[in-house]
Amino acid sequence: MTDELQTPAYALTHLNPEGGVRMVDVSVKGLTVRTAVASGRVIVPPEVLRAITENQVRKGDVLTVAQIAGIMGAKQTSLLIPLCHHVNLTAVDLELKPNEETNSIEIRAYTKATGPTGVEMEALTAVSIAALTIYDMCKSLSKEIVITDIQLLAKTGGASGDYRKTPSRAE
Amino acid sequence: MTDELQTPAYALTHLNPEGGVRMVDVSVKGLTVRTAVASGRVIVPPEVLRAITENQVRKGDVLTVAQIAGIMGAKQTSLLIPLCHHVNLTAVDLELKPNEETNSIEIRAYTKATGPTGVEMEALTAVSIAALTIYDMCKSLSKEIVITDIQLLAKTGGASGDYRKTPSRAE
Amino acid sequence: MTDELQTPAYALTHLNPEGGVRMVDVSVKGLTVRTAVASGRVIVPPEVLRAITENQVRKGDVLTVAQIAGIMGAKQTSLLIPLCHHVNLTAVDLELKPNEETNSIEIRAYTKATGPTGVEMEALTAVSIAALTIYDMCKSLSKEIVITDIQLLAKTGGASGDYRKTPSRAE
Amino acid sequence: MTDELQTPAYALTHLNPEGGVRMVDVSVKGLTVRTAVASGRVIVPPEVLRAITENQVRKGDVLTVAQIAGIMGAKQTSLLIPLCHHVNLTAVDLELKPNEETNSIEIRAYTKATGPTGVEMEALTAVSIAALTIYDMCKSLSKEIVITDIQLLAKTGGASGDYRKTPSRAE
Amino acid sequence: MTDELQTPAYALTHLNPEGGVRMVDVSVKGLTVRTAVASGRVIVPPEVLRAITENQVRKGDVLTVAQIAGIMGAKQTSLLIPLCHHVNLTAVDLELKPNEETNSIEIRAYTKATGPTGVEMEALTAVSIAALTIYDMCKSLSKEIVITDIQLLAKTGGASGDYRKTPSRAE
Amino acid sequence: MTDELQTPAYALTHLNPEGGVRMVDVSVKGLTVRTAVASGRVIVPPEVLRAITENQVRKGDVLTVAQIAGIMGAKQTSLLIPLCHHVNLTAVDLELKPNEETNSIEIRAYTKATGPTGVEMEALTAVSIAALTIYDMCKSLSKEIVITDIQLLAKTGGASGDYRKTPSRAE
Repeated sequence: MTDELQTPAYALTHLNPEGGVRMVDVSVKGLTVRTAVASGRVIVPPEVLRAITENQVRKGDVLTVAQIAGIMGAKQTSLLIPLCHHVNLTAVDLELKPNEETNSIEIRAYTKATGPTGVEMEALTAVSIAALTIYDMCKSLSKEIVITDIQLLAKTGGASGDYRKTPSRAE
Repeated sequence: MTDELQTPAYALTHLNPEGGVRMVDVSVKGLTVRTAVASGRVIVPPEVLRAITENQVRKGDVLTVAQIAGIMGAKQTSLLIPLCHHVNLTAVDLELKPNEETNSIEIRAYTKATGPTGVEMEALTAVSIAALTIYDMCKSLSKEIVITDIQLLAKTGGASGDYRKTPSRAE
Repeated sequence: MTDELQTPAYALTHLNPEGGVRMVDVSVKGLTVRTAVASGRVIVPPEVLRAITENQVRKGDVLTVAQIAGIMGAKQTSLLIPLCHHVNLTAVDLELKPNEETNSIEIRAYTKATGPTGVEMEALTAVSIAALTIYDMCKSLSKEIVITDIQLLAKTGGASGDYRKTPSRAE
Repeated sequence: MTDELQTPAYALTHLNPEGGVRMVDVSVKGLTVRTAVASGRVIVPPEVLRAITENQVRKGDVLTVAQIAGIMGAKQTSLLIPLCHHVNLTAVDLELKPNEETNSIEIRAYTKATGPTGVEMEALTAVSIAALTIYDMCKSLSKEIVITDIQLLAKTGGASGDYRKTPSRAE
Repeated sequence: MTDELQTPAYALTHLNPEGGVRMVDVSVKGLTVRTAVASGRVIVPPEVLRAITENQVRKGDVLTVAQIAGIMGAKQTSLLIPLCHHVNLTAVDLELKPNEETNSIEIRAYTKATGPTGVEMEALTAVSIAALTIYDMCKSLSKEIVITDIQLLAKTGGASGDYRKTPSRAE
Repeated sequence: MTDELQTPAYALTHLNPEGGVRMVDVSVKGLTVRTAVASGRVIVPPEVLRAITENQVRKGDVLTVAQIAGIMGAKQTSLLIPLCHHVNLTAVDLELKPNEETNSIEIRAYTKATGPTGVEMEALTAVSIAALTIYDMCKSLSKEIVITDIQLLAKTGGASGDYRKTPSRAE
C-alpha cells in the first residue's frame, strides 16, 4: 500500500506475513520480456495411442482439439488461479507429440509476454488444459489414462533471472 | 521463441508453417493507437421493426440491450476467438439504427486501444453479439430474421497501415 | 412472480409490458427435446479461400479452429446474450464447407437439449463465433471478408412447434 | 473517434450526450499508478458471528473463502460491469474482521494498477463479492443477514487527484 | 460420498466438520420451484440522482444499464461465489426506482428456478452487480456514493420452507 | 440429428466418423446419479513442503487457496474442455494432504451430479486447478516443482457402469 494510505482510517492492518491471502504487489517490478516453456505427458494404453494417431476417436481429432484448448486455457489463467496476475500474452504455442515408446502424448507449451510478472503459470495451465482435453476425448476408450510430469522446462526474463531445468530432469 | 531457448531440450520443434495452430508472436510489434469500425445488419419483417422502434417487445428495449451486449461482448473477444490476443480496450461505442427502407437494424461498432495488435476483431465481435441479442429478443415474434453484412469499415494504426472500405461497398 | 409474493412489501411493481428489461419466466413450459439448425456464410477473396482449403494460413488450420470455437461459443450463449436462459446442451455439431463457386465458407450448426427453452440462440451463436474465428485467422491476408446470411434453418420441439425455412430461402 | 474516421461513410453519428451507452474513451489519459481502498460490512446475528469466528460453519472457513472470492472477483470486474474498462491489477488485498460490538464482519479491499483508469470499481467489486460469499456460507444459519455500507474510502492517482473520505464518514 | 466409495483406497478422509471447504451435497434434495426477492439501495447526492433521472450521465442511461448488468450477473453467480451451486434460472427480473426522499436508487431483484437449491444468492448477486454498475456510471460525478441494505426480502420453495422478512425491516 | 431434419436442406452432411469435431449427443442417455473420485500429486522440495505445512508462504495459506480454486475450477470444466458437456454439479469436495515421506501434496477430488454424462472430467479438472494453484503460490520458493499422477480413482453411475482403479495402481 502506498505510504499516503497508511493511516488507520484507510489502511489495511494485516500487512504482515500471517495476514492471510493476497495477490502480491508487482507494481515496482519493471516491464521486461518474459518467456516460459512447460511440459507434461498423458500416458495412454497402446490401443488408445493408435486411435489418436490414426484419428479414429469418435469425438474428433484429439491433438488439434487439445492444442486449441491449451491455447485458450492459457488466456484464462488469471481467472482460474486465485492469486495469479493477469498478463496480456503476446504469444502462445503448443506442441503435442505421440511417443509410441513411452505410450504417451508429450505436450510442450511456450508462452511470452511483456510485463511485471512471469508467464510460467500460463505455460503450465496450457499444458494442463491440453492434457485434460486429451483425457476427455479418450475417456470412453479407456479409464487407464494418467496425466503426469507437468513441470517448467525453462523461463527467461524478470528479476529472478533465467532458468533451465537440467536436461536429465527435463527429459 | 527467443534464441536462447532453441536447444533441443527446451525448444518446440514444430516452428514451421505446417506445425499446427498457434497464437502468433506479436511482441516485436510496437505499441500504437489502434481504432476500428465494423458494421452489420439484422433484417427483420416490417412488423418486427415496428415493434422494436415502438418499444413493444415483451423482453424489453431491444436496441439498448443489444448495445450493452455488444460492448460487453467486445471485452470478451479474446476468450471467444481462440487465437486472438487480449487487448485492454480504451473505448467501445455502438450505434444501432432502425432503417425502415431496408427493413433492418443497422449496427456500427467502434473500438480503440493502444497495443501491439489491432482491434478489428473486437469491433466485429461487438457487432455480432449485438446482432444475436436483437435476434434473441425478437425471435418469439418471427423466425424470418437474418444477420448479414458483418464487415470491417475502417481501421487505423499498426504496421499494415490504415484501411477504408470503398464507400460503395461500405454502404 | 408467484401469487404469494404479490403483496406490496415483496412484489416488483413494474410487472407490465413497459416495465423495462427482463429474462422472461419459462418455468411453466414443459421440458421437451429441442433441436435447432442455423447457417451462415463467410465470403472471402479467391486467394484466401485457396489458402484455407490448402491449409496455408500461418495461424493454423482455419476450419478446425473455427469448428471448435463455434462449439465452445455455443456453450457460452447465455453468458453473452443478456436475456437468454442457460440450457445444458446435450449435443453441438458444426460443419464448415468451402464453396469455390460462391467464394465462401458455408457454416451449419446443430444444437440439441432437453429443456423449457429452445436452442436456436445456441446454434446461431455457434455459427457467429465460428465465422468470427475464420475472419480472425484470415484477416492478415485480406480485409475484404464479409460474414453474412446468419439465420435459422430449422427447429423442433417446444410449444411453438417445429419450423423449417422454405428451401428457396434456405438456398 | 479519431478525426480521420469522421466522414459519413465510417463515423458513428450519435457522438453526442444523448446517443446512448458507451465505454468512454480513456486513451488520452496518461498511465499513472492508481490505488483504491473500499470498505463494506455484513451484519449477522450474534450466533452466526460466533459460528464464523469459531470456524463452525458447515461449508468451511468463511473468512478465508470470502477473502479469496473477493480477490478473484476483483479480477473479473470489467466482465461484470458493462462500461468498466479492463485493467491489469498489480495488487489486490482484502481484510475481513469480525466485530462483536457491531455484530458484523468488516471488509476492506485494496487494489492497485498502472493504467489510464482508476481501480475503485475493482476494490468495490472485491468487497461486494466477499460480502456475498459470507452471505452464501451463512445463509443456512440465518436469513437475517444484511450487506451494507459499501463505499470508497480512498483513492490515489489519475487526473482527478487523490481522495479521502472524511474519517467521520469512513468511521 | 456414496457408500460404495467409502473404502480407504478411494474415500476422502476429511468428511467431518473441520475438514475444510466444500460445495455441500444437495443431490438428495428434491427438485422444487424456488423463488427469491432481494433488495438493496444506492445512496447518491441529490445532484447525481437528478442526473440519473434526467438521463444526463455521460456514459448513458444508468438505470437500464444497471438492470441488464444485474440480470447478467445473476447468471454468473455460481462462477463468482465459490461454494454456490449452479442453477438454470427460469426467470430474472430487476426493478430500479429513484427515490428523491431518500436520495437513493432502490433495487429489487426477483429470481426463479426449478432445482435442488434456492435462488437467494442469484437475487442478491443481481442486486449487487446492479448497484456496482450504478456506482461505476456515476463515479465521475461524485465519490459520496454508498451501496447499502442488500438483503433477502422473501423466498419460496425448498425444505426450509417459505420466508418473508417482516415489513418493518423490509421497510 | 433427429430424423425429421435429415433432408438435404437442413441436415449436416458430415455425420460420419471422419467428419471432424463434435460434442456428441447424450440426450438418449438416462439421468442417473454420477460420482467420481480423481487424484494427483504435487512434488515439492522438502523446504517448500515445510513452508506449506507451517503456513509460511508469503501469498497465504496454500492448501486452502488450492482447495477453493479446485472447487471453482470444477464448475468451469465445460468452459475449459471444448467437447465436455455442462453438468450442474450437486457436490464438490477436495482434500489436500502434505506427505513428508514422498515430499508431495496429495490431492483428491470428489464430484457428484445427476445427469446424462459422468463427472470424471470435473474431478480431474478440480485436481488440476488445485495443483496449478499450489505451483503458483510456491513458485517463488522453487522451480523444482512437478505436478504428477493425475488420474481417475473411481466412478459410479452411467451406462458404462462403475469403475475402481486397482489399489496397486491407485497406490
